[in-house]
Amino acid sequence: MFKTGCPYGTHRVLEPKGALPQGAWKIDNTMEIYDNEILVDVDVLNIDAASFTQIRRAAGDDREKIAAVMLDIVAKRGKHHNPVTGSGGMFIGRVAQIGPALQDETDLKVGDKIASLVSLSLTPLHIERIKKIHLEKDQVVIEGQAVLFASGLYAVLPPDLPERLALAVLDVAGAPAQTARLVHPGDTVLVVGGGGKSGLLCLYEAKKRAGVTGRVIGIGSGANSCTRMRETGLAGTVLQVSATDPLAVLKAVEEATGGRLADLTINCVNVPGTEMASILATKEGGTIYFFSMATSFTAAALGAEGVGKDVRMLIGNGYAKGHAQIALQVLRESKVLRELFERLYA
Amino acid sequence: MFKTGCPYGTHRVLEPKGALPQGAWKIDNTMEIYDNEILVDVDVLNIDAASFTQIRRAAGDDREKIAAVMLDIVAKRGKHHNPVTGSGGMFIGRVAQIGPALQDETDLKVGDKIASLVSLSLTPLHIERIKKIHLEKDQVVIEGQAVLFASGLYAVLPPDLPERLALAVLDVAGAPAQTARLVHPGDTVLVVGGGGKSGLLCLYEAKKRAGVTGRVIGIGSGANSCTRMRETGLAGTVLQVSATDPLAVLKAVEEATGGRLADLTINCVNVPGTEMASILATKEGGTIYFFSMATSFTAAALGAEGVGKDVRMLIGNGYAKGHAQIALQVLRESKVLRELFERLYA
Ligand SMILES: NC(=O)c1ccc[n+]([C@@H]2O[C@H](COP(=O)([O-])OP(=O)(O)OC[C@H]3O[C@@H](n4cnc5c(N)ncnc54)[C@H](OP(=O)(O)O)[C@@H]3O)[C@@H](O)[C@H]2O)c1
Ligand SMILES: NC(=O)c1ccc[n+]([C@@H]2O[C@H](COP(=O)([O-])OP(=O)(O)OC[C@H]3O[C@@H](n4cnc5c(N)ncnc54)[C@H](OP(=O)(O)O)[C@@H]3O)[C@@H](O)[C@H]2O)c1
Repeated sequence: MFKTGCPYGTHRVLEPKGALPQGAWKIDNTMEIYDNEILVDVDVLNIDAASFTQIRRAAGDDREKIAAVMLDIVAKRGKHHNPVTGSGGMFIGRVAQIGPALQDETDLKVGDKIASLVSLSLTPLHIERIKKIHLEKDQVVIEGQAVLFASGLYAVLPPDLPERLALAVLDVAGAPAQTARLVHPGDTVLVVGGGGKSGLLCLYEAKKRAGVTGRVIGIGSGANSCTRMRETGLAGTVLQVSATDPLAVLKAVEEATGGRLADLTINCVNVPGTEMASILATKEGGTIYFFSMATSFTAAALGAEGVGKDVRMLIGNGYAKGHAQIALQVLRESKVLRELFERLYA
Repeated sequence: MFKTGCPYGTHRVLEPKGALPQGAWKIDNTMEIYDNEILVDVDVLNIDAASFTQIRRAAGDDREKIAAVMLDIVAKRGKHHNPVTGSGGMFIGRVAQIGPALQDETDLKVGDKIASLVSLSLTPLHIERIKKIHLEKDQVVIEGQAVLFASGLYAVLPPDLPERLALAVLDVAGAPAQTARLVHPGDTVLVVGGGGKSGLLCLYEAKKRAGVTGRVIGIGSGANSCTRMRETGLAGTVLQVSATDPLAVLKAVEEATGGRLADLTINCVNVPGTEMASILATKEGGTIYFFSMATSFTAAALGAEGVGKDVRMLIGNGYAKGHAQIALQVLRESKVLRELFERLYA
């Protein structure tokens, strides 16, 4: 006998009552499904970059301490919802059970390998055991289970790409999809944190859409990420400067653009404190797309006002129609990115 | 002899070094100006609604405790930057001194009465004495001084409007200005928190722009704010429901729109936890403008993803070109709003 669930999963919210699972402090992670839920045996968690960076720093990169922090989060909240960054991540796993109310509505079969396209910050999760932590990939191999709600998005893993490569790309699928919408031919596009996972996908879409009359500039703070941008050839200009130093970024972008600044800035960093650099580097009337989960709403809103900059600032919605296909397609189109991503994440 | 200052005020940042004043934890509030600063004798602070609500709650509405909290914030940070909400507010005062480097660039004269259009969260402030706290107006009468940087915006107070009325309106000037840009004829516009200061101004702009083929819906949680929306006649439909209850809001807006939901939702509340209600009430492909400073970036980004809603979400930039004129113009055009605002805030 199955209990009847709400499509948004409110039936699992323990506190505060009335909240949706994402906003809830604690949800019920009993692995007994309601009639409209899907149970998944989870293999790998892809922890959100802002969250994983925070946990790594707090744990001094000690794997045992990282595991302890992760288990503690799930024990306290019933989900891997980092209380410091507010962000989650996603998982891959194999479908174990499909609630009867969903069986006619989905093509999914028990045994299918899927990636969740909703955040771990709202996903009921039970971790039996942490098997392996891949520090540089933000990936954690576990034995455990998770539940998808009726409204929860997922993607069946594509047969032509390695699983953990797909996982890495799907985690940030919203970024290239939104970039594709926002870039116009001829635009000067700045990708802050362009050498990271989402950053490189954005560089690719930006180059494709801005076209021969446009310009793509990438910013990274470390030598490695700048080398990645250069090697892929996706950024026409690469600037090594820290986005936590707004005036240094302003100066570098002014020099690179002859004072014209960026039409569109995409922020893909994994650290806090980069709102002002993004705002100053963008021209009056331009657009900033904050994909980074380390973005502070007030820092952006008041920061732009503080310098009298009339820019449009977008919150990076993790979802956009067709985002999974768009992101995976990038890896099919770009040989250089595919090779790089296989090396880094697969 | 004056020291030379940076236009953005970085010369006053004490920690962390390299930050701009808004992002800084602490700034130097010595009231001795640099060559490109303006010194102002401050009369009234208009504390940001999200910040003031938080302080009132923490102080149990006790005026002495509120004063103590405010003085403590300024003592610790050199600015009225609420560490909980991250937001500020603005001030009115009289120009006391103009740095020599600015004298040829500004029409301002010593003695002019101005309102700051940059946030108190980046404004060096010294409070000598708190004279009076107007609980219901978010206004605090003080004896003190503040500094405006060269890049800091201000408005000379208009002669035809009472000062504290202008202060109240200018505090939220960004909201009606952005509404004017975002509303298209025929749109269904939802204003969450429509009975508040910014909400009413947004209702006015929304009604004007959506026109006879459009629709304007206001939401408030209390009877008073709903009565205000009804009495002004600016919202065609008024729904009394709390925006912290996303499913209740969804249901109410579904009923009011025959399931079509809002093309544009403007969030003007002063409490946390209203992101999901705004997202659920907005149609696929629609736009949400988060003006509320109590908005959580991650709650919005992950919340929309969590329910698979492809909506465009904007961070409420406090500044838009001409926002002060646009906001004050509303009070000149609308007799009913002017009377209401004089009663509430002047
Ligand atoms: N909105 C959503 O739905 C959503 C979904 C998933 C992820 N995200 C967010 O997207 C962001 C990026 O994720 P990701 O997986 O692409 O991260 P990532 O692979 O770790 O890349 C982050 C990049 O930022 C760069 N960076 C770090 N500090 C910097 C600084 N001070 N200045 C300039 N660049 C800096 C890094 O290079 P260097 O170290 O060389 O500087 C790196 O290339 C994260 O904040 C994550 O939370 C959002
Ligand atoms: N982005 C910027 O630059 C900027 C600048 C200034 C201010 N702000 C922000 O704008 C927001 C509004 O400011 P304001 O001065 O207009 O505030 P306000 O006058 O205090 O109005 C807030 C409104 O929200 C309503 N409200 C409160 N709780 C609610 C709930 N649970 N459900 C529905 N409605 C609710 C209130 O009515 P009820 O109590 O009856 O519900 C009230 O009408 C604040 O968050 C402020 O921080 C932003």
